[in-house]
Amino acid sequence: MDVHPYEALKTLIASILPADEQAMQRARERQAQLTKPTGALGLLEDLSVRLAGVFGTPTPAPRGAAVIVAVGDHGVVAEGVSAYPPEVTPAMVANFLADTPFGPGGAAVNALARTVGARVYVADVGVNATLPDHPALISVKVRRGTRNLRHEPALTRDEVIQAILAGAALAAEAIRNGADLLIPAELGIGNTTPASAVTARLLQREVPGLTGRGTGVDDATLARKQAVIEAALARGGSVPTDPLGVLADLGGLEIACMLGMMLKGAAERRAIILDGFVEGSAALAGMALAPALRDYLFAAGECAEVGHAAQLAHLGLRPMFRLDLRLGEGTGGVLAVPMLMSAAAALREMRTFAEAQVPDRA
Amino acid sequence: MDVHPYEALKTLIASILPADEQAMQRARERQAQLTKPTGALGLLEDLSVRLAGVFGTPTPAPRGAAVIVAVGDHGVVAEGVSAYPPEVTPAMVANFLADTPFGPGGAAVNALARTVGARVYVADVGVNATLPDHPALISVKVRRGTRNLRHEPALTRDEVIQAILAGAALAAEAIRNGADLLIPAELGIGNTTPASAVTARLLQREVPGLTGRGTGVDDATLARKQAVIEAALARGGSVPTDPLGVLADLGGLEIACMLGMMLKGAAERRAIILDGFVEGSAALAGMALAPALRDYLFAAGECAEVGHAAQLAHLGLRPMFRLDLRLGEGTGGVLAVPMLMSAAAALREMRTFAEAQVPDRA
Repeated sequence: MDVHPYEALKTLIASILPADEQAMQRARERQAQLTKPTGALGLLEDLSVRLAGVFGTPTPAPRGAAVIVAVGDHGVVAEGVSAYPPEVTPAMVANFLADTPFGPGGAAVNALARTVGARVYVADVGVNATLPDHPALISVKVRRGTRNLRHEPALTRDEVIQAILAGAALAAEAIRNGADLLIPAELGIGNTTPASAVTARLLQREVPGLTGRGTGVDDATLARKQAVIEAALARGGSVPTDPLGVLADLGGLEIACMLGMMLKGAAERRAIILDGFVEGSAALAGMALAPALRDYLFAAGECAEVGHAAQLAHLGLRPMFRLDLRLGEGTGGVLAVPMLMSAAAALREMRTFAEAQVPDRA
Repeated sequence: MDVHPYEALKTLIASILPADEQAMQRARERQAQLTKPTGALGLLEDLSVRLAGVFGTPTPAPRGAAVIVAVGDHGVVAEGVSAYPPEVTPAMVANFLADTPFGPGGAAVNALARTVGARVYVADVGVNATLPDHPALISVKVRRGTRNLRHEPALTRDEVIQAILAGAALAAEAIRNGADLLIPAELGIGNTTPASAVTARLLQREVPGLTGRGTGVDDATLARKQAVIEAALARGGSVPTDPLGVLADLGGLEIACMLGMMLKGAAERRAIILDGFVEGSAALAGMALAPALRDYLFAAGECAEVGHAAQLAHLGLRPMFRLDLRLGEGTGGVLAVPMLMSAAAALREMRTFAEAQVPDRA
């Protein structure tokens, strides 16, 4: 890989501008005139103002939503950190793509996305298997799984950049197809381990408070998982000021790929719905690369995975709900779509006190 | 009013049966086989099982949703308990029905309901004004506003029953038109005062912890509101074991009307989305009349009004989100529609481990 991908990444990062403060101010003024007590729509009002800033208009009208599921495997599963065998990753890709009586896909994200009208993209960025061809499967494979981060850097810096640019290209395609709300999402057995490691390094916090049970490991496996992450952090020499280095040292291909979706989404002034803990690790790296990225991030729910709340606090994002989800796949992000659409609709479609001739206050 | 309406109400109450435990058990078994770690969809799994119990099938497929906004006025506004003048009630009815470039209605609930595909019904059960005819306005008026509950019972028992039966008829019509998810909703300046009084009496709890700022009253008005409710409770002789008596003593016509929607919804085995604090007071009365009603209630969000959490705790319901809404109109209930639809879709449409040939556990 020559210098060109790195230049492309630098250009992408440089193209992320802060949200439109003037549109936000006009949205705030409009909110104060709508036929309801000021603040009565609570967090929806804040979200609507932020959407105004993203889309550069006081009356944002997002079109569709898209979930982009990046799939990757992890060498660290050799350490026994997951409740599921790595064969689940390719089997679940097939499940995402399966024909069912209800439409494409038999996984949770498919069912939820159909309900809210979001499109699902599935991209192999690092599955440790050769997947059968499928017309709906997008291959952007960088390599077959990461190296075992317990013993060596998971990725090279070039591989990280390649995965980021692949994510940016996926986001660009989703946007071209009509998505104004982007949901970066992931599948990869073992991937809460790199997510915890990346989060611990970037936030410079202790491992136990950032390491949870993932798909549901038992106490012994949780203790082993924490020890593996501690060992990886002790091994690796990456520093928080070099987020690409952290991702190479401790990350995963789907994490880097989601980071690329976020950067491209922000550069194209789209709203990015931030789902769970693995997504959160990508967002932390993104904020370190481009602080203005935060203006484009909307936290869906607080998921059940330990450490997600710490990520959201660092990002300064308030979650919309707490349903104790811990599945990944973008499921929580999909549930946030109607909330953001509703927030925008209220700002855009409600009449003002003057328009409705409703008396304001006694 | 003769004995007949009371007999009709007794028949309605007697027709409410508990949820289908067998369907719930089959739904639990199905959840355990779907392609995700058990419990990974958190509260959505519990909700899906409860929906199975409501609809009597392990694969519930709710059709549409309807918000039914019952509108009433309150004699107690003469005591200065609201931030808004009573003229707002009829003005907001007009706003619910207005033609706008986006479709019918310029209020928050209209914008949100359009977003999630819910139908909005508007019913005058007790507005203290003669509303202009409108093809979409349903008149089930019992009287022009309640009496001032500070000084006398707000309603007669016959008026309460009339409003309940009107609500039941509204729910029946919404169900006939395709609603499987019912959102009882309300508009009525001053109505958090009767809602607090009814809640305090039914729960036998102190007033301050159950009395909030409604549409946003200042400290002096909040203190006055609490004093008015205390005085009404001291005046009235209703007892918690007689919920109809409590509603007559301290309630409101839209509260009784929403109670009727809930009873009919449960009798017809539909899911009832419970929105805010005023709805909560109706649900408490309903639980006292028909304990099985609880099986059909699904709490939307925890709203910002003080006392809502106490209502939900008594009802044994866990809210889906906390957005600090305090608007009423069914706005929170509408936001819960995609969540319930998603919960049902995941249960119904996801493939099992066996169907997808995904390995379960290591």
